[in-house]
Formats: sequence, C-alpha cells, structure tokens
Amino acid sequence: MTIPSPALQVGRLRPRGSRVLRVGLAGCGAVGGELVRLLRHSERDVRARYGTRFELVRVLVRGSGRPRPAELPPGVVTTDVDAFLASEVDVVVEAIGGIDPALPIARAVLAAGRRLVTANKALVAAHGPELVRLAARHRTRIDFESAVAGGIPVLRAIRDHLPVTEIRAIRGILNGTTNFILSRLAEGRRYAEALAEAQARGFAEADPSRDVGGDDAADKIRILAWLAFGADPATLPVRTRGIVPHPDRLAADAAALGGVPRLIAECVRSGAGVAAAVEPVIVAADSALGQVRGEDNVVVVESRWNGTLRLAGPGAGGAPTATALLGDLLRSARPLRCVPPAAEAGAAPDALHRWLLSVGAPGAGALVSGALAAAGLSAAGFVPGGDAVRAVVEGVPWSAVAAAGAALEAAGADPVLSRLEVHPRFLETRP
Amino acid sequence: MTIPSPALQVGRLRPRGSRVLRVGLAGCGAVGGELVRLLRHSERDVRARYGTRFELVRVLVRGSGRPRPAELPPGVVTTDVDAFLASEVDVVVEAIGGIDPALPIARAVLAAGRRLVTANKALVAAHGPELVRLAARHRTRIDFESAVAGGIPVLRAIRDHLPVTEIRAIRGILNGTTNFILSRLAEGRRYAEALAEAQARGFAEADPSRDVGGDDAADKIRILAWLAFGADPATLPVRTRGIVPHPDRLAADAAALGGVPRLIAECVRSGAGVAAAVEPVIVAADSALGQVRGEDNVVVVESRWNGTLRLAGPGAGGAPTATALLGDLLRSARPLRCVPPAAEAGAAPDALHRWLLSVGAPGAGALVSGALAAAGLSAAGFVPGGDAVRAVVEGVPWSAVAAAGAALEAAGADPVLSRLEVHPRFLETRP
Repeated sequence: MTIPSPALQVGRLRPRGSRVLRVGLAGCGAVGGELVRLLRHSERDVRARYGTRFELVRVLVRGSGRPRPAELPPGVVTTDVDAFLASEVDVVVEAIGGIDPALPIARAVLAAGRRLVTANKALVAAHGPELVRLAARHRTRIDFESAVAGGIPVLRAIRDHLPVTEIRAIRGILNGTTNFILSRLAEGRRYAEALAEAQARGFAEADPSRDVGGDDAADKIRILAWLAFGADPATLPVRTRGIVPHPDRLAADAAALGGVPRLIAECVRSGAGVAAAVEPVIVAADSALGQVRGEDNVVVVESRWNGTLRLAGPGAGGAPTATALLGDLLRSARPLRCVPPAAEAGAAPDALHRWLLSVGAPGAGALVSGALAAAGLSAAGFVPGGDAVRAVVEGVPWSAVAAAGAALEAAGADPVLSRLEVHPRFLETRP
Repeated sequence: MTIPSPALQVGRLRPRGSRVLRVGLAGCGAVGGELVRLLRHSERDVRARYGTRFELVRVLVRGSGRPRPAELPPGVVTTDVDAFLASEVDVVVEAIGGIDPALPIARAVLAAGRRLVTANKALVAAHGPELVRLAARHRTRIDFESAVAGGIPVLRAIRDHLPVTEIRAIRGILNGTTNFILSRLAEGRRYAEALAEAQARGFAEADPSRDVGGDDAADKIRILAWLAFGADPATLPVRTRGIVPHPDRLAADAAALGGVPRLIAECVRSGAGVAAAVEPVIVAADSALGQVRGEDNVVVVESRWNGTLRLAGPGAGGAPTATALLGDLLRSARPLRCVPPAAEAGAAPDALHRWLLSVGAPGAGALVSGALAAAGLSAAGFVPGGDAVRAVVEGVPWSAVAAAGAALEAAGADPVLSRLEVHPRFLETRP
C-alpha cells in the first residue's frame, strides 16, 4: 500500500463552525456500522444544535462482499486505501483496529492536516505521542475518547476537567469482555460456556486472547497513564496478567473468600514514578468494583483536589463506542445553541410509582385504610413493625397518594410519604 | 449599585492561548478561597501544560474585616462592586451565590464581552437562558460546571459527550448536605445531631433550609433538564419535597423496609414533555444510589445510544468545586501539550498488596508453605475449603509472591495468584 505524501492531499481542514463536515470512515464493522446509523439518526439534532451536517464521503472496507449497514449512501464504499486517502474530507474516523493499515492511514491523515478521530486503543497505546506531535506539526488534531472505556467520557474528564488536580491513581475495569465472562463465572457458570455466550452476544472476538490475556486492558491503562501522568505509553512497563489460564479456579478462589473476581487495570503515581498493572483481583461483591457487572466498565480517578471520581457505564458495544466517536466529531462543530431545542412545551404528567405512606401511631391502621379508600386507593400491603402503620401503595402517581396524605394531614395524623426504588429487595414487601 | 454600561468597560476578551489570563473573583468564601489556593498550587502545572498564567487581578468580598486566604496578593481585595466590575480582566469567576448581587454582576460581565465562570446554581436555574443569550450576543461565554454536582463533570458529559444520544432520563443525588445527613440517619443517628455535625464539618449552612427542603437539588435538576432537554429551567415545574419536616421518621420507615433513605432528584422526558421531581426515596443500601454515602453526589444519565452512565464523586466542599471552576477557566487556555510533562523517568516499584495463592490439590499445604518459606514469606492464614489450598499472603510486592508462585510452578503444582481488594470483608480471613 502506498501512502500519499501530504503534498498530494487536497481538502484542508475547514474552519470550526462550517456548515458541512465531510467525513471519511475507515472500517465499517460493529463500531463503524453503528456510527453510520448514529450519524443518520442524529442528523436533525446535529443540525438544530450545531447548524452542521456530517456528510459521509468515503467508507473504507476490507472486502466488498460483506454485509453493510443499510444507511450507507451509494457509491461511497471503497476497498482501496489510496483512493480512500485521496478523498476530500475534513475528518477521518478510524475504526479498523490494530496497527496495520491503521497506523499508515493515521499518519497520512494527520500529515495532510486533516483531523483524525480513532477508536483504536492499540494504535494510541503504541503510537499516541508520535501521532499527537504529528497533528500539532500540521495544525490539526487527533481525538480518541472511544479508545478507552467506550461510552464513558473518561479521557474528557482527565484532559479537560481534572488536568491540574494532581491525579494520584487511576484504576478500573477496562475490558467489557472479561468482565462479562467473570460476572457469569461468579454466577456459577463455567468459562467455556461464558466465553461462548460472550462471543454469541458480540462482546468477544473469535480470538479472545487479547481480552482474556489482559493486553487490551493494558493498552487502555497505558493511554490513561499517558494522559494523566505524561508517562510514555509505548514504554511504560505494565505488569499484565489476564484471567487465563485458570479462569474457573480464579472464580472458585473468589467464591471461597466470599468475593467475586474482577480484572483490574491500574496506574499509580508515586515519587518514584508510575506503577501500572493489569491483574485479577478478588473484590467484595458489593464494592464499587464488584458492582460493575456484565460488559460495563468503570474508571476510578483519585486526585488530591477532587477526591475520588467514579465513572461507570457501557464499556463495549457498537452504540456506546459510536456515541464517543460522534462526541469527538462534534469537537470541530461549534454549537449554535447551548441546549437542544425544547421538543415539547409542557410538563409531562407524573409517572406511576410505588409509595410508602406511614403514620406514627401503631393503632392508625383503619384511619390509613380509610384515607386511601377515600382517594380511590388501597394498600398493596403493610410493612411489619410496631412503632407505626406503614402502607405500601403500588402503581399510582404522586397526585393520588398525595390526596390520601392530605386527608390524613387534615385528620391530624401527620403522615410521611416516601417513594420506593424499583428494586427486587422491595418486592418482598408485597402481601 | 450601578452596573456600568458595556461601553464603559475596557479590556475585552483576549484570544485563546494568550499567555496571561486576568481573573476577577467575586466572592472569597469556602469555594472562592479554595480556588485562590488551587490557582496558586497549580501555577506550575498550568504553565507547563497550557503556557498560560492566571493572574488574580481583583477579588470582591462582602466585608473587609473577614479572614482571607493567605495566598491573596496584596491590594486585590475590594468591597466595591463598581470598582470590581471596572477592573481589566478577561474572565470573572462568580462564587457569591444567590441572586443579588450575583445577577447584576453576571449581566455586566457578559455585556462587557468578558467570560463568566459561575458556581451559582440558583442564578443559572433562574436566569441561565437569559445569560447564555447575553453571552452569545456579546461573543463571549458563560460556563457553570461547578454549579451542579461539584467535582463531577456532569455538564461536560451532557453538553460535549452525550448531546445527540437521545437522553431519556437523568436522576441522582445532587445535594451533598442532605446525603451526609441521611447517611448518618441510616447509621442510627438523630437528625439534630447529624445536622449539627454537617454544620461543624462545613457541609451545611447555618440556615440549611434550601438543602433539607429540596430547593437546592431542584435548582440543579432544572439546570440538567435545561441542558439535556431544552426545558426552560425558570418555568419547569419540579415537584419538590425535602427530607423535612420528619427526617427521623423517614429514616425509621426506610429501616423498617430494610432500605436507606435518599433525596433523589430526577427529570424524565416522555412524548408528553418533561417530568421533574425532588423527593425522598427509600432505596436498597447496596443499590447504585444507596452506595453513595456521605457528602458524595451521583448522576445517572440514561440515553438511547449510550445506555446508562453513572458519574459519582464529591458533590460538595471547596476543593472539588474549585476544581470544576478551574476546569472552566482552562476552557479559554489552549493546551500546549496533550499530556502533562512526565515528572519521573522510570517506573515505580510495585506496591505492597495482599495476595491469595491457591493450589488445586487439597493435600498441598506443606508444599505451599515450603514455597512461601523459600521465597522468604509466610502465610497470614489459610482460607477454609476442601477443594484447594488457599494461602493469604499480606503486605508483599508482586515480585515476592511471584517467586513463590514460580517455585510451585516448577514443582508442577500449577498455582493461581490473585490480588485481594483492600476491603473490610477480606480482613475476616486473617488467622
């Protein structure tokens, strides 16, 4: 493959706020395909809020025979890297993964003064500093929010919100595939079965070795250590152990301790430098790390000035990653409006909830039932306990339960009204 | 107080990337004072990363007799609003709170084409749209990350990362004062005692009525509904109930159900419009909301394209709020470098951890003890369980426990090595 020299490139970066942003997309698999769908679905919102339209000019794919998202405009698909790079675009989204041909594409795009948005953690971990320098030299930029923790805006937090707060440590669950598998193992399933399910649901590749061996999480912690501490991601030693070769025994060890297994990535700064590791850790099931289940990710940032910040959400999957790519694309679109246009004028009616209506007099059962009946309600059950009458009322709006409360108030009964969280725990109070 | 007309103002907004940003600070209490300290402490980092220096030109305070942070440069303090507004600054940080004189100050700053950074939720909830329009008209900007959820970058996430993901609901714990009090009540303390502690620790004002009555959280959910849905924050109805007048009975009700009380703010978009509420909700202690304790805040954003995103961290306190103010100040400083300069060259030595070393043969106790002894270690205890020998090793670096593992490996024992989370649960395994 020949990479065109910068001099051969046409179509320089357009100024911020221009009305059409021409996008080239390299890679149209799970992530790239979802970005195509999101660009289509968000078209009206982007125009209303930014006065901008994204025009998908060129899409680079590996083979022409594979299925494509239905939304692809006709004639944009190419399998030729040179033709892709010669297209007149303002920004290229790289969603191929791996180093080749992602690295030569990234270099050519930046050297041509075009913006690059990439979801490629292996590329950024190995070549991030070089690509950032190249972007600076050609007065353009590279963004890679989607490369770490999918739809969780962790790089934005570290680069824009926390840059001078003296970050001390970053730790988290950065690989959705292994967390999905470990969550299943904690439920008593076997590794082979959990891996097969992860593959069937699209969370694991046919070859999951970079996920289960810890290398994917290591790439991500390198990127975080780079942004937070300035450590060179390509050379930072990361002590890396995955959940293999004995995942079922790891799960049994965790169970024997009453905990659950998690694959934790972390980097910690001390006076001596930065220590980074990816390794299996047995955590309490109800701890902040243990509560992150399935394909979710979590990132915990500890800093001197901002205490402990926890960001959790979808770490894998096409839609969340596409969300982060679109967020990076929008960095070059100046918002017309601070907020979205209000779609609806009025306020919506109250939702239906479960409520607890309590009166602090043990003998007030008939009074409470009467007030509920007068409001057209009845208790789904009463919570045991001698100090008060506590009625659970299900599936009614605030206005209904407030009417019963007002009647009790008028009778001098001084009620307390609380909503009940939708949680399995509270289903136990049903009669 | 007279607000100078824009024509009287000198010192227009400087271009992005200029080397000195002149800051005027209105209000030097808990938040403003901490910002002064943070500006001083971060001076070297800001210069290294942004090539910029913040110069604190003028500080407006209410009375001249109060104690000031030691870091205030001599001669910058004034009690005169007109003199403050006439100062030549690029950006004004408003940390006074309330509407008067914050509103006339905000209007004068923006009308003069200067940037405004504010921590004032009441101001933004009541006048946000007007101030944003005023900023746009005068080609400047207003930022208010610190007005909602202190040190959690939730506005950044909604404005920059999730703007076109079709947000459906935002809910959370947005008032650190009530969450601190409710956490204490769930531990069995009484309201009067918990409130007094909150006041002593600086989490509650002398008059806590806006916190415990829910109005502070209502201001914040109005701002979130505005940014996410375009709802007018000044007119959006928010059904607001606080934790008073019966906080102790609320806690008793939650305990009777096996849950904990939380003050939840939420806004939900449906086809009919936006429904918003602040009210006491009884949640499970181990749910995402129940796990947020003390003065922490949490914000949960549900969107069509990005699933459920949870952001948790310090919601109150001078330092986290100052962090968010500084993040907003840095929006006008173009970074020189993508990452901080690396302070240390090498990698740090491994930290000391607790480990679980397991061998899947019930009779291997002597083998494990021998391998540990050969590595200069000894087991702090063994975990009961018949299927394997599981030794807990405390307070050693990876290299030490890895040596024992390698010895077992050489003996054909196929060990599994996991780290143990620092968690009270696992202290029970001590012998």
